[in-house]
Amino acid sequence: MIDPVCTIADEIEKQVVAYRRDLHRYAELGWTEFRTASLIARRLVDLGYVVSAGRDVIRAEDRMGVPSEDMLEACWQRAGDEGGDPAFLEVMRGGFTGVVGVLQHGEGPVVGLRFDIDALPVSESRDPDHCPVREGFVSLHDGVAHACGHDGHGAVGLGVAEVVSRLRQEIRGTIKLIFQPAEEGVRGAKSMVGAGVLDDVDRLLGHHLYSGWETGEIAPWTGGYLATTKFDAVFSGLAAHAAGQPQKGKNALLAAAAAVLHLYAISRHRDGSTRINVGQLIAGSGRNVIPADARLMIETRGATTELNEYMYDRAVLVLEGAARMYECDVDICAMGAAQSADGDPQMMAQVVEMALLLGATMLRPPREGGGSEDFTCMMRRVQERGGLATNIGIGAGIDGWGHHTARFDLDEKAMACAVKLLAALALTLG
Amino acid sequence: MIDPVCTIADEIEKQVVAYRRDLHRYAELGWTEFRTASLIARRLVDLGYVVSAGRDVIRAEDRMGVPSEDMLEACWQRAGDEGGDPAFLEVMRGGFTGVVGVLQHGEGPVVGLRFDIDALPVSESRDPDHCPVREGFVSLHDGVAHACGHDGHGAVGLGVAEVVSRLRQEIRGTIKLIFQPAEEGVRGAKSMVGAGVLDDVDRLLGHHLYSGWETGEIAPWTGGYLATTKFDAVFSGLAAHAAGQPQKGKNALLAAAAAVLHLYAISRHRDGSTRINVGQLIAGSGRNVIPADARLMIETRGATTELNEYMYDRAVLVLEGAARMYECDVDICAMGAAQSADGDPQMMAQVVEMALLLGATMLRPPREGGGSEDFTCMMRRVQERGGLATNIGIGAGIDGWGHHTARFDLDEKAMACAVKLLAALALTLG
Amino acid sequence: MIDPVCTIADEIEKQVVAYRRDLHRYAELGWTEFRTASLIARRLVDLGYVVSAGRDVIRAEDRMGVPSEDMLEACWQRAGDEGGDPAFLEVMRGGFTGVVGVLQHGEGPVVGLRFDIDALPVSESRDPDHCPVREGFVSLHDGVAHACGHDGHGAVGLGVAEVVSRLRQEIRGTIKLIFQPAEEGVRGAKSMVGAGVLDDVDRLLGHHLYSGWETGEIAPWTGGYLATTKFDAVFSGLAAHAAGQPQKGKNALLAAAAAVLHLYAISRHRDGSTRINVGQLIAGSGRNVIPADARLMIETRGATTELNEYMYDRAVLVLEGAARMYECDVDICAMGAAQSADGDPQMMAQVVEMALLLGATMLRPPREGGGSEDFTCMMRRVQERGGLATNIGIGAGIDGWGHHTARFDLDEKAMACAVKLLAALALTLG
Amino acid sequence: MIDPVCTIADEIEKQVVAYRRDLHRYAELGWTEFRTASLIARRLVDLGYVVSAGRDVIRAEDRMGVPSEDMLEACWQRAGDEGGDPAFLEVMRGGFTGVVGVLQHGEGPVVGLRFDIDALPVSESRDPDHCPVREGFVSLHDGVAHACGHDGHGAVGLGVAEVVSRLRQEIRGTIKLIFQPAEEGVRGAKSMVGAGVLDDVDRLLGHHLYSGWETGEIAPWTGGYLATTKFDAVFSGLAAHAAGQPQKGKNALLAAAAAVLHLYAISRHRDGSTRINVGQLIAGSGRNVIPADARLMIETRGATTELNEYMYDRAVLVLEGAARMYECDVDICAMGAAQSADGDPQMMAQVVEMALLLGATMLRPPREGGGSEDFTCMMRRVQERGGLATNIGIGAGIDGWGHHTARFDLDEKAMACAVKLLAALALTLG
Repeated sequence: MIDPVCTIADEIEKQVVAYRRDLHRYAELGWTEFRTASLIARRLVDLGYVVSAGRDVIRAEDRMGVPSEDMLEACWQRAGDEGGDPAFLEVMRGGFTGVVGVLQHGEGPVVGLRFDIDALPVSESRDPDHCPVREGFVSLHDGVAHACGHDGHGAVGLGVAEVVSRLRQEIRGTIKLIFQPAEEGVRGAKSMVGAGVLDDVDRLLGHHLYSGWETGEIAPWTGGYLATTKFDAVFSGLAAHAAGQPQKGKNALLAAAAAVLHLYAISRHRDGSTRINVGQLIAGSGRNVIPADARLMIETRGATTELNEYMYDRAVLVLEGAARMYECDVDICAMGAAQSADGDPQMMAQVVEMALLLGATMLRPPREGGGSEDFTCMMRRVQERGGLATNIGIGAGIDGWGHHTARFDLDEKAMACAVKLLAALALTLG
Repeated sequence: MIDPVCTIADEIEKQVVAYRRDLHRYAELGWTEFRTASLIARRLVDLGYVVSAGRDVIRAEDRMGVPSEDMLEACWQRAGDEGGDPAFLEVMRGGFTGVVGVLQHGEGPVVGLRFDIDALPVSESRDPDHCPVREGFVSLHDGVAHACGHDGHGAVGLGVAEVVSRLRQEIRGTIKLIFQPAEEGVRGAKSMVGAGVLDDVDRLLGHHLYSGWETGEIAPWTGGYLATTKFDAVFSGLAAHAAGQPQKGKNALLAAAAAVLHLYAISRHRDGSTRINVGQLIAGSGRNVIPADARLMIETRGATTELNEYMYDRAVLVLEGAARMYECDVDICAMGAAQSADGDPQMMAQVVEMALLLGATMLRPPREGGGSEDFTCMMRRVQERGGLATNIGIGAGIDGWGHHTARFDLDEKAMACAVKLLAALALTLG
Repeated sequence: MIDPVCTIADEIEKQVVAYRRDLHRYAELGWTEFRTASLIARRLVDLGYVVSAGRDVIRAEDRMGVPSEDMLEACWQRAGDEGGDPAFLEVMRGGFTGVVGVLQHGEGPVVGLRFDIDALPVSESRDPDHCPVREGFVSLHDGVAHACGHDGHGAVGLGVAEVVSRLRQEIRGTIKLIFQPAEEGVRGAKSMVGAGVLDDVDRLLGHHLYSGWETGEIAPWTGGYLATTKFDAVFSGLAAHAAGQPQKGKNALLAAAAAVLHLYAISRHRDGSTRINVGQLIAGSGRNVIPADARLMIETRGATTELNEYMYDRAVLVLEGAARMYECDVDICAMGAAQSADGDPQMMAQVVEMALLLGATMLRPPREGGGSEDFTCMMRRVQERGGLATNIGIGAGIDGWGHHTARFDLDEKAMACAVKLLAALALTLG
Repeated sequence: MIDPVCTIADEIEKQVVAYRRDLHRYAELGWTEFRTASLIARRLVDLGYVVSAGRDVIRAEDRMGVPSEDMLEACWQRAGDEGGDPAFLEVMRGGFTGVVGVLQHGEGPVVGLRFDIDALPVSESRDPDHCPVREGFVSLHDGVAHACGHDGHGAVGLGVAEVVSRLRQEIRGTIKLIFQPAEEGVRGAKSMVGAGVLDDVDRLLGHHLYSGWETGEIAPWTGGYLATTKFDAVFSGLAAHAAGQPQKGKNALLAAAAAVLHLYAISRHRDGSTRINVGQLIAGSGRNVIPADARLMIETRGATTELNEYMYDRAVLVLEGAARMYECDVDICAMGAAQSADGDPQMMAQVVEMALLLGATMLRPPREGGGSEDFTCMMRRVQERGGLATNIGIGAGIDGWGHHTARFDLDEKAMACAVKLLAALALTLG
C-alpha cells in the first residue's frame, strides 16, 4: 500500500505546490473562502468524489463570528471575479464555505480527514526576500494572508484526494474529506458538527503544518489544547451631555470598565489552568458625551471543557451585574468555541507506526501548549460515538518568522510528506 | 404676654440648669433614653399635661437604627437603678422613649414644640477645667456624653412646660410638647410622624443651641440641611478554603469592595449637591478563608429630598449589581433618614419679631451648612397639611470645642433665652 | 455715532451674508482654517488694518488638540486649491491660523473684539429644505460643517472691520480685531493669550449667535461657563499571548478600565459643581492578546477654575496609580482648556444701554448653562491686568435644529444686528 | 538498632501520652508557648542534652505575626502561674519560644528532627463525648486549642529525646532536636533559620500526625505544599466630614477596596497554580466620616516559590498604586512565609525502608494538597547546603472531625509509632 501511495504522491508533488500557491495568492478570511472552497469542491467532483457543500454541510445557527452581510457579499462578488466555480459559488453564497467529498469502496469504517482552509487578517510582508514575493504568489488581498499554513492544509487535502482517488480499489469502507472554513477564532467546526458531517465517522484525522519544527518531524498528537469560548459583549446605555445633564446618562463605558476588572478577578480554580482576556474594548463617542455604547471582545479558556465553562458562567454573571449597576443592557454574542480533547492512544500508535514506515526523521512526544483548535469539536463528536481521533503535527520548517506574522512561510516539501502519511493512513485505517 | 413669660422664666432658671445637669450626668444614647424620657413624662404629668408615651407616640416599624435587644434591656435596667420613673419605664421598655404632653385652653390652632433628648457615643473629657467635671455633673456612663447639647434642649422643654402651665389661661388653642428620641443618626423623627403625633399640628417650632454662636444670637431658621438616608448593606456569600477550593467560595468581601468603588462613582447631578459615603466596611474572618460576610455602613445625601433619592436609588442598583457579580445576597437595612426642608417665611418673621421684643443681641441670616436634621421629617408633615414650621438657632457660646467632641459644653445662660422665646411664641402663635 | 454705524451696516448687509456663505461653504476644522483665516487677513489688509498672523499671534507650545502633520498639510494644500490667499497661507502653514487686525486713531484705550472661526466634525444635512442646500452654500467638505455659527461670527467680524474702517476718524484709541482658531474643544484661545495678543487690551468683547433665541434678543453676558480641562491619557503596556504567556503581559486595557472607575469616584467637593467624563476608550487589538495600548478621552469641569483644578489634579493621581498597578506607562496630553469667568457688570451695563439704543426687542438675563468657552482665557488675561470684558449673546432664531447638529442654521438677519452692536460698542468704549 | 528503640519506646509510651495531654491542657498560641517550651527545655536538660533556647535559636527580626507586647506579657505571666520552668521562662520572655537540644557521640553527620508545638485560636468542644473532655485534659485556655496535633508532635519529640538519650552510645555523629514555635500561620520557621539553627544540619526530618489517615499509615513525604506569603496592608488616609468637607478626606477605605479588586485581578501565570486571598478587611469609623484607616489581611500562594513571588510582587504594586490613587499611605507587614519544597528521594527511600522494618501497615504515595507548611524553610536551608530532608506523614486516625475544628483529636497510639520511626531513623541516618 505504501509504495503506490508514495509513487503517486511524488508524481503530483508539483501540482500540490501549485494548489498551495494559488490558495495563498487568493487568501480569504473565515466564512469568505468562496473562491477557495468552490475550486476545491469542483476538483473533488472531477476526481470522482460525491460532493456536498454549502448549507448541506454548514448549519447556519451554529456559525460563529460571521462577518457582516455587506462583507460577505463583497467577498462573494470578488470570488466570482477571481475565477471561483460558478455552480458551487451559488450554494455557498452568504457564508457557507464548507465542502465534503466522499469516496466509498468495499465494506469498512468511515475514515474522516479534516482540512482547514481560511486565512488571517494579517498584512503579508512585501520584502523581496519573502519567498511568496520572490516567487510571485504573495497575497493579492490587502490585509489578508495565509499566515498559519492553512493554504498548505487545503493543498494537502487535494493531494490526498487525488492519491485516494487513483487507489480507490484499495479503499475498505468510506473515505470522507472534510474542508472546514473559519478555523481561526475557532468559529467553523461547530457548524459542520451541527450539520451532522461527523455523525457517521469512525476514525478521524486532522493535521497541522508547523514552520517551527524541522521538516520530517511528526507528532501523533498536537494537543494540550485549552477549551475556549470567544464572545463579544455589547453594553448599551444612554447618551447625555456630560456637563449639562450627567445624571441622565446611562454610562456604557463605565459599565464595561467595571466588567473588565471583575472579569479578571474571577476566582482561580483548584482543578487546573483557567484564562480570561478582554482583548479589545471600544466605547464612547465625543469627549463631552456620557458614552452610550461599549463593545468588549472576550475569551475564556480552561484546561478542560468544564474549567472553561466555569470561567464563562462566572463571566456572564459579571457582565450582567455590571449592566445592572449602571442601568445598561448587555448583549452577549458567541464568536467561537473549542473544547479540550485528547488524541486516542490506539490511533496515535497507528500514526507512529506509519510515520516510521514512511521514514519520519524524528517523532515528537505529544506537544503541550496554550492554544486552542476547533478540530476538538469534531473529535469530541466522533469520540462520543465510540470512534477514534487524533490530530497530527507535521514539521514544515523554514528560516522565517512564527505563525500569525507577516513573514510566515512553510517548507513546501513538507506537503508531500503530509500527503503520503494521511493518504496511507486513510487507506489502512479503513 | 411677654412680661409674665419672662418673669416666670427668670424664676425657674436655676431649676432649668438643674434639669440640664441631671440629664447630662445620666446621658443616654438614642432609643435608650429610658431615665431621661420617663422623668420628663413624670414632670409633665405633675405640671398638668395630658401625657402620652411609649408605643402611643412611637411607631415600631418606623424606628431606625435600634440597638440590639440585649443593649436595650441592659439600659432599661440601668434606668430603673438610676431613678427612672417606674410607671413610664414600663411603657417605654424595648426602646419606645418618646413623650408628648398636651395642654389645651380656649379655641385655636395646635402649636407643637419639639425637643430632642439623646446623647452621643463620645467619651466625655475628664479634664478638671471641663465645666461638667468641675461642677460635678460629668457623664456617669462610659463612652456616652451629651456632646451636642440635647441635654439643654430637654431642659429647655421642661422650662417651657412650666411657663406655659403657669400661664395656661393665656393659651388660645393647644400647646403640644414633643420630646423625641434618637435624633443623632436621624433615626427617631420618622417613628413619631408614623405614630401620627404631627397630624394635628398647625404651627411647629424646633430649636437648636449652638456653642459656636454667641449667647443671645438668634436665627429664625437653621437650615441648609441636606436630605439624607442612612443604611447598612450586608453581603452574604459562602466561605471556602482560599487555596484548596477557591472556586467554591462566594466572596462577600470582594462584592462589597466592588460596591464601594461603584457607589463613589455614581454620576454627579446637575440640580445640586449630592454626597455618598461608606463610613465603615467590616468583612471576612481568617486570612486563608474566602470571606462569607461583609457589612457596609453607608449614607447618601442631597441638597433636596429628590437629589438624595437619586443617590439612594442608584446606590441600591450598585449594591444589587455587585451581589449578582459575585453570586452573593445583599440585604439593605434603613438606619436613618432626614429630608431637606425650608422654614416658612411667615413663621420666620414671627420669630424675628419676638426675638427683637425679647432683646436678642443679634439676628443671624438663615444658616447654610452641610449637615442633616430629622426635625425636617416633622416639618414636612406639618407643611404638607398646610401648616407652618421652622427651626430656631440659639447661640450658647462658650470657649470650648465644637459639637460632637469630648470637650463640648454650653453656656447655660442661653437656656433662659430659649425658654422665653419658645414659651412666648407658643402662647402667641396659638 | 449710532446713526453712521447703522447706515454703513445696512449698506454692507448683503456683503456680510456673502462672507458667511463663503465661509460656510468651505468649512474648516480647528487649526486647519487656512482658507478662512488667510482670506480674512487679506480683507483686513485691504481695509487698512495693520495685520499680524501665523506664529506672531499663535504660540506653538500653547496650542492644544492639534491634528496630525499629514492632516494639517492636506488641509493646507486644499486651501490653496480653493482660493486661499497665498501670502498669508505661507505664514499659517503647519496650523497657525490666527489673525489680528489693528486700527488706531487718537488717544484712548485698546478695545479688543474676538471672533472664532472654526467648524465642527459634523456631516451637514443634504435635505433640500435645509437652507444652505436650497441656497447652494452647503459645506463642500465631507464630514465638516459650520454647525455652531462660527461662520456667522467670522462674517460679523469682517462687517465690524468695514464699519470701523470707514469711521476710523471716530476711533478714540485702538481697535483690535482678534480672529481665533479652534474654539471647538476649547483648544485655541490659550495660544493667542500665550502669544501676548491680549496683553495690551483694556476692554474686551466677544459674542455668540444663538439659533435657539429669537432674532433681536440680546444678553450682556452668556456665562455660567464651567472651567474645564480636556486631555487624553494613553496607557502603554506590553502585549503577550493571553493563554500562553499571560504573566508576561502588561495590560494597558485593564489599567485604563481601572482608571475609569476611579476617575468617576473622585470625591465631590463642598464648594460647588464638579464634573468628570471619559468620553471615549479605545484599547487592545486581538481577542487573544493582552492589550498593550489604551487611549482615553477625558474632561474635567468645575464651577470655578479652582474646582476644575481639584478634579484635574486628582485625575492625574488616579491615572498614575492605575499605571503603577499594572506596570504600564501613562502619558497625559492636554487637548483643551477653559476657565470660569464673570462678565464685568460695568461693561454689561454698557452693552445693555447700547442694545436698547439700537432697539433690541428683548434683553435676556445673564444665562446659566453647563457648557464651557475658551474666550474665558482671554477674559481672564484682560481682567488680571485691570481691564473689563464680557461675552454678548445675540439671538439668531431659526426653526431648525440645535447647535452641533446636521441641520443647524442661523437667521442671517441677526448678523446685521451684531455688526451694529459690536461696531458701536467698539467706537464708544474706546 | 530497631529492637532496643522499640523496647524503650514501648516502655515510655504512657509517659509520651502524659506529655501530650499536659501540652493539650495548657494549649498556647504561636509565640506564647512559654510553658510548653520551657518545660521541654527543662526535660531535655534532664535527659543530658546541650540545650539552647530563646534568642539563641530565634532571630528577632525574622519573627512574623508576633502578638502585641501586652498579649505576650500576659501569656508569659500565665505560664509562670501554670508551672513553666522559671529559668527558661526568663530567656523566652517577649516571645522567644524555640528550643534546641543537641546530643553528640562519635563521628558522623548532624541529623536534625523538627517538632512544632503551637496551638490554634479554636474553642475546643465541651461535648462529653470528646475524648479530652471525657479524660479530663481539655484545654484550660479559652479560645485556644491543640486542634492540629502539635501537642502530639511535642510529645513525640520528648519521646524521641528519651530513646536517643538512652541509646546515646549508638549515635554516630550528632542528633539535633528542634522545637519550633508558631507554625500555624507559617510564622516561626524563618526565625530559627535566621538564627542559624539549620546551618550545620546534614539530614533533616519532620513529621505530621494526621487524624484522617488510619493509624499505622506512613507517607515518606507529605508535600505538594504551596509556597505562600502572609501579610497585612494598612492604608492611612485623612478623616473628614463626609457631607461638609468631602474633598478634604483621603479615603483609606476606598483605596483598600480598590486594592482588593485589583489584587484578585492579578494575571494568571502559565507555569502553574497561583492563589490570592484577602481574608479580612476592616476599615472606617463613623457613617458620616471619610474613613482614615483600613487594614487588609492578605495571602498569596504559588505552586513554586517563584510563582508565589510573582503574585507577591504584583500585589505590592497594586497596593502602592491604590494608595497613590487616593493619596493614602500604605504599610505592608510580613505575617508569615513558607516555600515550596520537595522531599529528597534518597531520604524518602530510607523512610520507606525503615517503616517497612517497623511493620507499617500501609505506605502512602507522596500526598498532594493545597496547604502550606513552614518546615519548607528549614528544608530549603538544608538542601541548599547539600543536605537531605523530608517530612513524614503518620496516620493517627480517629473517628472525629478534621484538623482545625473544635472536635479534632488524635489516636494516641500513633505517637509510639512516630517515636519508633523517628528515633530509629535518627540513629541510622547518622
